Amino acid sequence: MTGDGPDPGRLSFNQITADQLSLRQVVEGCVESGIGWLAPWRHKLEPDSAALIRAAGLRVSSLCRGGFFPAATEAERRERDGDNRRAVEEAAELGTDVLVLVCGGARGDELDQARDQVLTGIERLVPFAVERGITLAIEPLHPMMVVERSVIVTLAQANAIAERFDPSEVGVVVDAYHVWWDPDLERELERAGPRIRGYHVSDWLVPTTDLLGGRGMMGEGAIDLPRLRRLVDAAGYRGPIEAEVINSELACEPGMELIARVRESYLRSA
Amino acid sequence: MTGDGPDPGRLSFNQITADQLSLRQVVEGCVESGIGWLAPWRHKLEPDSAALIRAAGLRVSSLCRGGFFPAATEAERRERDGDNRRAVEEAAELGTDVLVLVCGGARGDELDQARDQVLTGIERLVPFAVERGITLAIEPLHPMMVVERSVIVTLAQANAIAERFDPSEVGVVVDAYHVWWDPDLERELERAGPRIRGYHVSDWLVPTTDLLGGRGMMGEGAIDLPRLRRLVDAAGYRGPIEAEVINSELACEPGMELIARVRESYLRSA
Repeated sequence: MTGDGPDPGRLSFNQITADQLSLRQVVEGCVESGIGWLAPWRHKLEPDSAALIRAAGLRVSSLCRGGFFPAATEAERRERDGDNRRAVEEAAELGTDVLVLVCGGARGDELDQARDQVLTGIERLVPFAVERGITLAIEPLHPMMVVERSVIVTLAQANAIAERFDPSEVGVVVDAYHVWWDPDLERELERAGPRIRGYHVSDWLVPTTDLLGGRGMMGEGAIDLPRLRRLVDAAGYRGPIEAEVINSELACEPGMELIARVRESYLRSA
Repeated sequence: MTGDGPDPGRLSFNQITADQLSLRQVVEGCVESGIGWLAPWRHKLEPDSAALIRAAGLRVSSLCRGGFFPAATEAERRERDGDNRRAVEEAAELGTDVLVLVCGGARGDELDQARDQVLTGIERLVPFAVERGITLAIEPLHPMMVVERSVIVTLAQANAIAERFDPSEVGVVVDAYHVWWDPDLERELERAGPRIRGYHVSDWLVPTTDLLGGRGMMGEGAIDLPRLRRLVDAAGYRGPIEAEVINSELACEPGMELIARVRESYLRSA
């Protein structure tokens, strides 16, 4: 590690990286590996999660995830709104102030409408989140995920929505895997500035054989992660850096060793 | 087919769709299926290709492809330049005035440099192409192809390069598969206007299981192709529409039936 390498104290373990483990195991793994931050996913939460994490001395960088705003019916919309409010409450309970938004996907004939629904969905959620001290952080996903996951596919789009609100209300999450290809990245990071509420790392494997579960460990792919970290730093972000390596094969490996390996890869290559 | 359906006379068969066939077979298939245009690929050309196509009464919409400008060494650069000049000569010989440029990919640490090399490579090629009546048409590819195929991943990037030249020298190719996700698409199509020198169709399958050979037949995926055709038409494009369905499974089917099926899918869904 050189003098300008990544700060070990900023590493946060994004739980989906070790989806084979329970939250309790992930907490133990982070403590063993000397990782101070954790980013839990909602499907792994248990009634005592907040106490468990706190007792281990870990801090929570964000909760993943709210969002999925596009809805075909009014009933569906209400259901999503309710679920998003629960996500806000869970984030507050866990002691983080960031709820990551994966905004939801759409087919081509519904893209425009879905993008409108993302904006109005966020508008409806903001007052509830503000009351509980939670900032909603829009994560643009890679364009190849536009149908299944997110109609928000560029940082420019996320910034344009976030700018309609106060920075304490709506921010953005920058995930290297989703945005590294973007010719406007440098400009949009600068534009985002204090709105950046999270930075995620993993790597783009060559070739990529799985659109959803085909991410690489830091240093194993094509992304210039040190350059991205410097750009995100230059934009003013000083918070935790989440390692979020969604990979179907890694998710079958022994989880505790995987957590240690994530830390090594982060220190060497992020 | 409704009154505002796609014009049968504009359909061009992009040869890579039936890579299992020889050029002679593809020509026969187009004639049998009543397709009037053909877009050959260079790796399928034979000494008598131009005569063969002409004798069958087919017109050539474009030649695919030149490009791959980023080069690690001066020797490699010279080799690519030579190959691109041959591509220009082949396009002229075939009787088309459009050479499609797939600009070449790069890893993250070389993205900026590679994008510069695309511009300077085109600059070097333009005078040679102008003398032979060939317009270079930059095709932006989907961001998921940035490493292996093209550092030009948005129509905005292609437009920005093309605008440095006269429209007769450098234009753009719009491929629905590569650009349909883009929130700036409508604006950039309008901006491209008379620079649009080709429009390609296929469909985005859900899920997509292969990044390079996983395209769908028109109507089988998530792209709103009629809307895109109307936008491309509104931008002023009146030329041929190439069906370019790169799919590993289709490439194993009987080729002649595949050509007929492409025409049906085009008429029904493009």
